[in-house]
Amino acid sequence: MNAEIVAVGSELLTAGRLDTNSLWLTDQLNDLGVEVVQKAVIGDERARLTAGVQDALARADILFVTGGLGPTEDDLTRDAVAAATGRELIFDEAICAGIEARFARFGRRMSEVNKRQAYVIEGAEVLANANGTAPGQWLAVNGKAVVLLPGPPGELKPMFTRECLPRLQAFVPPLAIAKRWFRVAGMPESDLDQLIAPEYTKYSNPVTTILASAGDVEIHLRARCATGEEAERLCTELGDKILGLLGSRAYSLDGTPLDATVGRILGERGETVAVAESATGGMLAQRLTRVAGSSKYFVGGFLTYSDEAKAKLLGVPEELIAANTAVSEVVAAWMAANAREKTGATWALSVTGEAGPESATGAPVGTMYVGLAGPSGTEVKLLRFGGDRERIRGFVTNAALNFLRMRLLGLD
Amino acid sequence: MNAEIVAVGSELLTAGRLDTNSLWLTDQLNDLGVEVVQKAVIGDERARLTAGVQDALARADILFVTGGLGPTEDDLTRDAVAAATGRELIFDEAICAGIEARFARFGRRMSEVNKRQAYVIEGAEVLANANGTAPGQWLAVNGKAVVLLPGPPGELKPMFTRECLPRLQAFVPPLAIAKRWFRVAGMPESDLDQLIAPEYTKYSNPVTTILASAGDVEIHLRARCATGEEAERLCTELGDKILGLLGSRAYSLDGTPLDATVGRILGERGETVAVAESATGGMLAQRLTRVAGSSKYFVGGFLTYSDEAKAKLLGVPEELIAANTAVSEVVAAWMAANAREKTGATWALSVTGEAGPESATGAPVGTMYVGLAGPSGTEVKLLRFGGDRERIRGFVTNAALNFLRMRLLGLD
Repeated sequence: MNAEIVAVGSELLTAGRLDTNSLWLTDQLNDLGVEVVQKAVIGDERARLTAGVQDALARADILFVTGGLGPTEDDLTRDAVAAATGRELIFDEAICAGIEARFARFGRRMSEVNKRQAYVIEGAEVLANANGTAPGQWLAVNGKAVVLLPGPPGELKPMFTRECLPRLQAFVPPLAIAKRWFRVAGMPESDLDQLIAPEYTKYSNPVTTILASAGDVEIHLRARCATGEEAERLCTELGDKILGLLGSRAYSLDGTPLDATVGRILGERGETVAVAESATGGMLAQRLTRVAGSSKYFVGGFLTYSDEAKAKLLGVPEELIAANTAVSEVVAAWMAANAREKTGATWALSVTGEAGPESATGAPVGTMYVGLAGPSGTEVKLLRFGGDRERIRGFVTNAALNFLRMRLLGLD
Repeated sequence: MNAEIVAVGSELLTAGRLDTNSLWLTDQLNDLGVEVVQKAVIGDERARLTAGVQDALARADILFVTGGLGPTEDDLTRDAVAAATGRELIFDEAICAGIEARFARFGRRMSEVNKRQAYVIEGAEVLANANGTAPGQWLAVNGKAVVLLPGPPGELKPMFTRECLPRLQAFVPPLAIAKRWFRVAGMPESDLDQLIAPEYTKYSNPVTTILASAGDVEIHLRARCATGEEAERLCTELGDKILGLLGSRAYSLDGTPLDATVGRILGERGETVAVAESATGGMLAQRLTRVAGSSKYFVGGFLTYSDEAKAKLLGVPEELIAANTAVSEVVAAWMAANAREKTGATWALSVTGEAGPESATGAPVGTMYVGLAGPSGTEVKLLRFGGDRERIRGFVTNAALNFLRMRLLGLD
């Protein structure tokens, strides 16, 4: 079975807004074995919207129309779907009373315009909205399903889960799904793909998807079979082959991000980490503290952006900086070692380098030294990254986190 | 004139990938006075793609088809557009030679499959690709234009600018555009909209767009007129009214972000800033150092996530923390004052609070104290934010930057 998604709203045709609901819906539908085969964004124009719904319904088994269920004249989804399917719109007293009651709960009176939201397409089932005034609608048309959902993600997602999922499970032929979600650090996407493509291209089921961001690559496997056992067996078969090739570069077997993975290991061991950041200017600490509960293992540290701060806050000898520049192995080592000593943390990571666009020290932009001080001494890695300032900072942040992970696990 | 965009590629129908090219293209087209009225994402399927191109071409004056110009069998854009317009595909020796030469420059031999990229739709103009092997194509069909562009943004954007823009300027009726781009801090989007809507809703030209992220709101005005003078006059007229209502809350009149705005003011005055971060855990420093050239005014600072670090690194008295908890006005004040003293910076910002999901001190999640130490003393603001951990951290980071901006400008 396949699905299409029509996102409604002129604001989604501006340069500042993307339809992100469709990503979440796609994930949910794929889990049911339903493929999304086409997506559209259509503005608040009655004729265009009616035609778009008609065209999509001619192609797809299931059509989701998101947005355009608000109370204003620009909210045309109800009208357009009714016109496209040749149905009437019928005023529903119960919905109207519900909207009125919702307003009353917030101490307000319902405006006249909100009555528009109480119209239901002839024959449609009403999908309750726990988080807003616009109900959704589920309409069966010639063995196909048309589903109207509100645009705000905070309304769409719970409505899908509570109201659509049970209906879809009855509507879609049952298919068992198994999934794997690995994450890999310290490997460019192209190298990773070259390594594992010979294995995953042998399988059309599971489907393999690779997603990369700065120094962090996700591998998703999704198998669809008649039975759960078979789907699990296929995922395990391919997953084990991929993991065998990746070895310790796969840092997560369940989708946990790198910062949380490092945090989990530290937490389990009752160890702590501090940082001394120059080029990353807080990005490394920001990543570590993004994780809820990170106060258990993240102590704090030093932001030493200037040479003076490296000397004054961290005690890196001024003559050492003068002789080697701040972008050097020895400065990275002192930064890490002194951050560890001054904070009393088990581990301390340091980053110093040239993030660009200009080089202050003469070292090429993208040159990064990552220091790691731990119970058995201090090490420094020299790394080089391409791209702009934010890309370089993102890559070295992940490289630093992965450096700590490897040493925590006793890996080289 | 109106345009549609068809983004081609099955990967754009997965749960992990959005078509972002269309945002950039929309901005470029709007600047020419062309509205994007519909967008579609279609997978790598010949029949579906051919039909999608045919449908879009029946509606739009200008059709952009992005992606699907690669060398593999899945790259069907050339075939589909040829079929949709009833044209032949013609092999172009010169393009083939160009691709071969490009491979040779990187010391490689062209694969046989790359010959697919040398086929041109009958009657199309070839758009040179300075950054890849796939040339674009510009095809005139019954007074309409169909433009094929490669999917990678690094190829699409320069090709559009160099090859499409001049052709579009000749194709589209000339219309003068004027724009304004304001940014506002310290005001929720809904309050801002309530304040300025009575003015901007009086104008259908300029069009006003409001975009909000954590504690930072952008206001875009775009006027389209027969003459540049008239467009500028309308933008100035509405812009001045809006700015009159916003006052000093408008921190940028040219789109410069808040971090760079604060940096510009510091740089102009030859002053510096340091930070002492607890709840934001590096996010504030990361924002300040995101800006190229920030080493001129950002000194560094302290990440004092634990109570112990606040005492040990920053010298906040332990008994003070014990008596007031770390989430208190007095601790925020000491953090800022001591960070200023220890770094020698002109200004120091501190943040301490509860980012959630749990509260360590009993203060409600979302409680944030922002301290600012400067030449004439230390002040603390108590702020409260809702939402999840990342939202709270994002909001307080912008609030801290805006606090510094207001004091730099001598505003309350």
